[in-house]
Amino acid sequence: MSVRHLAVIGLGLIGGSFARALRAAGEVGRVSGYDPDPQQRQQALRLGVVDQVYETAEAAVRDADLVVLAVPVLHTGEALRACLPGLRADTVVTDVGSTKQSVLREVEAVCGQLPSWFVPGHPIAGTEKSGVANSLVDLFRNHRVVLTPHAAQSPAARALVAKLWQAVGARVVEMGAAEHDAIFAATSHLPHVIAYSFVDMLARLPHSDDIFPNAGGGFRDFTRIASSSAQMWHDIVRANAGAVGELLDRQIEELQQIRRMMREERWDELRELFARARTARERYLTQIE
Amino acid sequence: MSVRHLAVIGLGLIGGSFARALRAAGEVGRVSGYDPDPQQRQQALRLGVVDQVYETAEAAVRDADLVVLAVPVLHTGEALRACLPGLRADTVVTDVGSTKQSVLREVEAVCGQLPSWFVPGHPIAGTEKSGVANSLVDLFRNHRVVLTPHAAQSPAARALVAKLWQAVGARVVEMGAAEHDAIFAATSHLPHVIAYSFVDMLARLPHSDDIFPNAGGGFRDFTRIASSSAQMWHDIVRANAGAVGELLDRQIEELQQIRRMMREERWDELRELFARARTARERYLTQIE
Repeated sequence: MSVRHLAVIGLGLIGGSFARALRAAGEVGRVSGYDPDPQQRQQALRLGVVDQVYETAEAAVRDADLVVLAVPVLHTGEALRACLPGLRADTVVTDVGSTKQSVLREVEAVCGQLPSWFVPGHPIAGTEKSGVANSLVDLFRNHRVVLTPHAAQSPAARALVAKLWQAVGARVVEMGAAEHDAIFAATSHLPHVIAYSFVDMLARLPHSDDIFPNAGGGFRDFTRIASSSAQMWHDIVRANAGAVGELLDRQIEELQQIRRMMREERWDELRELFARARTARERYLTQIE
Repeated sequence: MSVRHLAVIGLGLIGGSFARALRAAGEVGRVSGYDPDPQQRQQALRLGVVDQVYETAEAAVRDADLVVLAVPVLHTGEALRACLPGLRADTVVTDVGSTKQSVLREVEAVCGQLPSWFVPGHPIAGTEKSGVANSLVDLFRNHRVVLTPHAAQSPAARALVAKLWQAVGARVVEMGAAEHDAIFAATSHLPHVIAYSFVDMLARLPHSDDIFPNAGGGFRDFTRIASSSAQMWHDIVRANAGAVGELLDRQIEELQQIRRMMREERWDELRELFARARTARERYLTQIE
């Protein structure tokens, strides 16, 4: 057992799944939890995801060896601030946020500097479903976890967090926070913006009631991520607005180019663009988890 | 057995799957096939999808009771023209094209008027994979098939085609060709344009080699349709350019609105848009096949 007492702050899909997986791997003793939503707290308790829940983050983290912040990214600073009075000097704190520069900024703002005991992390796993009721013991198996180390980070703290992710079947990789945010703006944040925007555009059409019943499997997969938590993705897009905005500009420009090809009947160019995209996806497909 | 002799023109995913399914259902006797690509012809023969292949469409359809045109939509007229000399007066011809107004226009141009024996159809099924090697006996089971009847259509021809689709497990619905094209521009054609355009945009980024290996399940599903045949989707977008173009304009406008919300930090509006999209998708989810 690597961690005698784990505290999970934010009892949702990711926090709940990490607690379940660590327990199944025999890596944790006692698991305490906090969520601002009493329903999530009660559900986490009832499902056995945590052993005990508390009405404040401070109480939940008291005497914890490891604290996992599993909250919407823009609430990371606020969550950490609430934990601070309960932390021991040697408590390790990690997070699971989808943006990393904003998390480092918030943590630095709360602590005055980046603390050695904070290990920023991002598991590349999840579903469009939210809440502890949807948490899964094997959510992270064969998935990547990106750690974005900072200069002040303690090697021992980093080693503990990496070991736990490996224990639940994940592959740990490291990269800089800025690099992380640019990459995930492309692979994850922008696709969510596009999927939400596409479904919203269709839903506002006058004949939208005739459209959705005629959707097939391609539509279902293309729009699956538009069923994700609006609060969570609002936070992510806002926290990574620079990188997402830049790519969104490029995406709009590319769609405008396609529209011009259609207007000017440059059909060969359109077919070449489709073929180029198909080749790119097929080439990289084996690298997609 | 409803059809003594079936001829499949275009031995790809859809044509091959329809032949397999009809044979499994005991609805066809002999199956002949034609494809301009000798490899597809040989593969169809080797896989037992067809009993015999021919080097011309005319030879393949000779003495057929039913001809299925399963070619990229912009080749419908050309394929029908090649079949004409081989057709009997009572041969029924149907198609499986994803656009219906362009198919009706092409058939009318080839025949001088819409013939009573032509039954336009569109199975709402498929995968991103192409070719007869990927054809599946149960591809249409529990899927919709849209028929778009025209004024000259023979009720007996329509009844035969509907009966065969039902025999392979599909649900047959009818609507006008213009309505069909507007609906599928929204649920299928535009998503393909967006998915191709998104992957192409990423592939052209200088750091694209770092991007794709970090993609997760959301990315894989969002971009799945970008692995579809470029030729086939070029044809569809070109054949339905009016409806697709109109929706593409709306999509660009919606993305520009989101970009403005981000620039002006109207974050509550962005969250509301995401939440609205999520609600729309969840509401219609049970209607998606």
